Amino acid sequence: MQASQTIWSEAEKTIAQAAFTNAYQREINALIQEVHDRSKQIKAIEDVWHLHDFLSARRHELDGKYDNRDAALVFVFADLLREGWLQVSEIEGLDADKIKKISALARM
Amino acid sequence: MQASQTIWSEAEKTIAQAAFTNAYQREINALIQEVHDRSKQIKAIEDVWHLHDFLSARRHELDGKYDNRDAALVFVFADLLREGWLQVSEIEGLDADKIKKISALARM
Repeated sequence: MQASQTIWSEAEKTIAQAAFTNAYQREINALIQEVHDRSKQIKAIEDVWHLHDFLSARRHELDGKYDNRDAALVFVFADLLREGWLQVSEIEGLDADKIKKISALARM
Repeated sequence: MQASQTIWSEAEKTIAQAAFTNAYQREINALIQEVHDRSKQIKAIEDVWHLHDFLSARRHELDGKYDNRDAALVFVFADLLREGWLQVSEIEGLDADKIKKISALARM
């Protein structure tokens, strides 16, 4: 990977931190809403265990996904763009090479 | 363990099966209600993971607890009596030795 994708200026760090936090909060809020919705549908014990399986998978996914180390951020932002938790406008101001790489990865 | 506690007549099996099923259904219904109640309280991601931890523990406990093998039933019924999911009146008709053993274990 090029250094421009792993070295972040102070200005870039500020933008990245805000984008990261906003995406995380959106995904968390959606998860909380989904837990509310799923819980309301629970009528049998199988539904309880389905909720448990769902939470196990989401927790594992979220634990691995929001990696804010400098070298990981390009990949994290690509995932968040692809999944719709982040808009490209929120990473404006980052180095052009980073945005290009993030956008390309997001289309994969 | 005495044979009277591990050998079940057909009449005893019928009583035991009904008691087992009723206790299980009560505990499951209480769990479903608790999941509904806990879900309504969820406001932050920590609450979601607390629900997940709770379900992990309850699933593990329930998987181990409702063991309907003949040799296990005396112990299972003792647990269920102690925890209030079963009333002693529901195992009336079992061999007197079994009821005595179940009641003694339930008080431990």
